[in-house]
Amino acid sequence: MKDKIERWVSAPVRALTAYHVPDAAGYIKLDAMENPYTWPSTLVNEWLERVRHAQVNRYPDPEARELKRRLRRFLDLPEGISLLLGNGSDELIQIMAMALSGAGRAILAPEPTFVMYRLIAEVLGFTFIGVPLRASDFALDVGAMCAAIDRHDPALVFLASPNNPTGNLFERLDVEKVIERAPGLVVIDEAYYPFAGETWLRDLNRYHNVVVMQTLSKAGLAGLRIGLLAGAAMWLDEFNKVRLPYNINILSQETASFILDHAQFLREQAEQICRDRELLYEQMRSITGLRVWPSRANFLLFRASVTARALLERMKQKGVLIKCLHGSHPLLDECLRVTVGTAGENEIFLNALVAESTLRA
Amino acid sequence: MKDKIERWVSAPVRALTAYHVPDAAGYIKLDAMENPYTWPSTLVNEWLERVRHAQVNRYPDPEARELKRRLRRFLDLPEGISLLLGNGSDELIQIMAMALSGAGRAILAPEPTFVMYRLIAEVLGFTFIGVPLRASDFALDVGAMCAAIDRHDPALVFLASPNNPTGNLFERLDVEKVIERAPGLVVIDEAYYPFAGETWLRDLNRYHNVVVMQTLSKAGLAGLRIGLLAGAAMWLDEFNKVRLPYNINILSQETASFILDHAQFLREQAEQICRDRELLYEQMRSITGLRVWPSRANFLLFRASVTARALLERMKQKGVLIKCLHGSHPLLDECLRVTVGTAGENEIFLNALVAESTLRA
Repeated sequence: MKDKIERWVSAPVRALTAYHVPDAAGYIKLDAMENPYTWPSTLVNEWLERVRHAQVNRYPDPEARELKRRLRRFLDLPEGISLLLGNGSDELIQIMAMALSGAGRAILAPEPTFVMYRLIAEVLGFTFIGVPLRASDFALDVGAMCAAIDRHDPALVFLASPNNPTGNLFERLDVEKVIERAPGLVVIDEAYYPFAGETWLRDLNRYHNVVVMQTLSKAGLAGLRIGLLAGAAMWLDEFNKVRLPYNINILSQETASFILDHAQFLREQAEQICRDRELLYEQMRSITGLRVWPSRANFLLFRASVTARALLERMKQKGVLIKCLHGSHPLLDECLRVTVGTAGENEIFLNALVAESTLRA
Repeated sequence: MKDKIERWVSAPVRALTAYHVPDAAGYIKLDAMENPYTWPSTLVNEWLERVRHAQVNRYPDPEARELKRRLRRFLDLPEGISLLLGNGSDELIQIMAMALSGAGRAILAPEPTFVMYRLIAEVLGFTFIGVPLRASDFALDVGAMCAAIDRHDPALVFLASPNNPTGNLFERLDVEKVIERAPGLVVIDEAYYPFAGETWLRDLNRYHNVVVMQTLSKAGLAGLRIGLLAGAAMWLDEFNKVRLPYNINILSQETASFILDHAQFLREQAEQICRDRELLYEQMRSITGLRVWPSRANFLLFRASVTARALLERMKQKGVLIKCLHGSHPLLDECLRVTVGTAGENEIFLNALVAESTLRA
């Protein structure tokens, strides 16, 4: 069997190590950028009545027309802009990469950034070009980006803004320069839009080579796996041919359609998370020896006076899961990322962090 | 924009036409191999109580451990055989093709068969080799299969058994010969297992190059999108690296886990469908000028004395959706496919069919 696997499984796949997710049962989960809030109970009852009538024995609507209508309204999508849905943004990244694949092609993104761009690019045989962000503030290094674009002629450029795991929005002028320089498609990944409030959706009509990706995950529906791509029909029609026809299951379609008719509470939850982020940021700033970066997302990047791996373990012992980024990119040396949780969760995290920092100070 | 699309979208993707699914609202749906039955109402209530507690705001378990445990039991999976889940079998086909992709590689399958093998192969840059089934009975043409395998050295061979849209099981000895000749991986697609009752799951330990694919769709859960792949860990570990980490949403995980604890009624529904298939087969056989093929699946392939497209339209006017296969493969000249529905649905279909056939006879 081993000889067959070595012969047939592609080299980039064999080189990968499996993605590992720790068991989170019983922990305060501040490691995955989830919205910590649930739904008002009256809404839950209404929702279940809708789910009751879902035809689980039938294939879902392959075009998810009802959900798309609601998303258009929810996003206030301009005329002439189309929508494509994915089983999470992950699938949309994969769809675009498959559609634009070819021998010797490249995908480019600033780094550190969302790891799936690199992973999917490599599995599909692209050369992945990571261009370091500016070390001082994680802004786009426009000169380096343009030089790398000229050199590698990328089919796709991914710009996550706000960027994960650094939390900053990229400057509009910087993004514009990258768009103008890119020979292929530029994907602006606005996964953290609910906490930043700034979008390129209204600018799509001005460009021939830009699409915007968002998701319902961070807004509070991570379990449903609904990512969305907005852009010109001419691009999206090509991507739609690559999409597997029944990629959004019926329960996610029904649930998201229902909740988008009551989306105000999701917006209020996002506002609460933003207020709590600012409070947590100020509290963390006041800890001696700790560096925390400003964020437009629902998480904070920080570096403590303790090593990142040690702090991760100590936090876990205290029942709090956060994310260690040390080793993932040179700019993230000894860095960690904490998702903004409920006020109570943030307090438990903060107290633990203060205790650790004091011990070592 | 057009120039960018022509430059960057890969040639096989540009050559595709978008998949079109007609609006089925108000029709008797006998076109998609769905189980026509719903669930006992006591089960629905129990299920909704479980859905109520699903954490829609959290990412799903990326390994779907609870669902996999139940599937192992449901499938009576032998020791040493691993499981991988996909967002429908479609995603599993795509995962395997991505993992085994490479310049100049081929994917091979008998034809006519499930169209996604060819579609996914072409999108991912494989050469797709379709080897005609025997015209007389749609059995594997083992000589032609082995010759094509020798010539094209395929990375993957797909064998759907029972085969869609022909409905027949392939002979075990024929399948064995293909397995022994294939240099790469052989995927036995048992999507219609609930109606055929024969499986290669118990034979997996005997081969180094075979995996078995099944799905919960035809058994009655098409809306959930749960496909499964069973095979040696050595193969599945490689495929798991290509799988997007959160590919099975939380509501599908919870719903499938729940229903597999009460799977007896699904088995009884499948038995009912098999009995109704046999009855419908006999009734169709008695129609003058109509040819119908025996089936081990939940559909019947047939050819009438009327052209397939005309019959499709007349059926639609009478409120019944079936599938026209004319034009999809030379062996399916003037053929149509009807899914076995409820007794009442089958009767409406049959009466309409008799009326059309009598008109033209």
